[in-house]
Amino acid sequence: MTSKKVIEVFYDVVSPYSWLGFEVMCRYRHVWNIELKLRPAFLGGIMQGAGNKPPGLVPNKFMYMMKDLTRLSEYFGVPLQKPSDPFEAMFQKGSLSAMRFVTAVQEREKGGDKQVEQVSRELWRRIWTEDKDITEPASLAEAAMKAGLSDSDIEEALKLYTSKEIKDKLKNATQDALNHGAFGFPMVVCHLNGKPEMFFGSDRFELMAHCIGEKWLGPQPNKSAAKL
Amino acid sequence: MTSKKVIEVFYDVVSPYSWLGFEVMCRYRHVWNIELKLRPAFLGGIMQGAGNKPPGLVPNKFMYMMKDLTRLSEYFGVPLQKPSDPFEAMFQKGSLSAMRFVTAVQEREKGGDKQVEQVSRELWRRIWTEDKDITEPASLAEAAMKAGLSDSDIEEALKLYTSKEIKDKLKNATQDALNHGAFGFPMVVCHLNGKPEMFFGSDRFELMAHCIGEKWLGPQPNKSAAKL
Repeated sequence: MTSKKVIEVFYDVVSPYSWLGFEVMCRYRHVWNIELKLRPAFLGGIMQGAGNKPPGLVPNKFMYMMKDLTRLSEYFGVPLQKPSDPFEAMFQKGSLSAMRFVTAVQEREKGGDKQVEQVSRELWRRIWTEDKDITEPASLAEAAMKAGLSDSDIEEALKLYTSKEIKDKLKNATQDALNHGAFGFPMVVCHLNGKPEMFFGSDRFELMAHCIGEKWLGPQPNKSAAKL
Repeated sequence: MTSKKVIEVFYDVVSPYSWLGFEVMCRYRHVWNIELKLRPAFLGGIMQGAGNKPPGLVPNKFMYMMKDLTRLSEYFGVPLQKPSDPFEAMFQKGSLSAMRFVTAVQEREKGGDKQVEQVSRELWRRIWTEDKDITEPASLAEAAMKAGLSDSDIEEALKLYTSKEIKDKLKNATQDALNHGAFGFPMVVCHLNGKPEMFFGSDRFELMAHCIGEKWLGPQPNKSAAKL
């Protein structure tokens, strides 16, 4: 038996391409021989740390991205919908509170990452499907409730997410991503024979599969498998 | 018999991702039911017209791109090698002469695009495999010779490529790309039921295949087909 390859996925729920990458990796954790590590981090800190600018600031690129996301949403089976004001949602309101909250959920969760996975997904659903807020405590609580957390778990996470401990934990995760050379999200780091191989974006899975010696079955592997 | 889908590929030989996209489309013209139109254009004009900046100007992005290109080169079977001074090659010397020359070859070629295809490939090979100049007339002539053009064809193309007619033709192709919403190259435009669908980059072929109802067999379809 070969040991599982460790794969980290760095993401931020403000980023729609991160949602695509996150869902693909969550699906393949049950298909490939991998151990997946969810790494919630802060995209704003990546952009600042790497001196990068959000791609949506170039008008032709923004228009293309919206079209691209519509097509990818259908092909990936991820229900992306443009918020009514993408600039406000992504750049003015942002995701700092949301990612601190996810970090708090991760800090408290023992024996797995089901809660982190579900809370992240529900936050994406709020901003990128339902055009809802992800900055207010009530919004975070609602996402956590839909994710199946108990009232007491939610209460504890809401107490914790503004603490220095959690702020530092999110900063450290973001710094880890920068140390791997991140300039945007999603970023997937495959640890192969002790060497990290970094893949940016949600369009390198076929290449990644080739590099780690696994088979790419498209973004919906269970659907593909059912067809075979 | 269904009529062939028209697919245009806009490219510039200064762009390594364009080389990947160009080779994939040239391979698939014999695999998919498509009519491929090669559209040499000027990436510098796209960047200026779209208000975009080359991605390589962000250090982390530049480092990632070099790594990404090394991995993709092997996976796509395209012999990309970083020039000794990528900034000089891409941004200082650039590709205006080279793309005018390709345009002149296209203007003169009758009954097909074999010469345009081969000359483009030889120019890419010079800048992106052999670290050679693509700005001097002697460099253009050498690429054309390797591409199999006759001495008289080369002589005529060298007379033509600085003419107003050719400068305007390249400007028009670049403007066509901008009108389709380009902000970089390669850009592939699929004409489906009279409606253009634009795909940017060399990482949307699987999605493109899905959209045009064809099967994606990876970047080296003949190799994949041989394996099946």
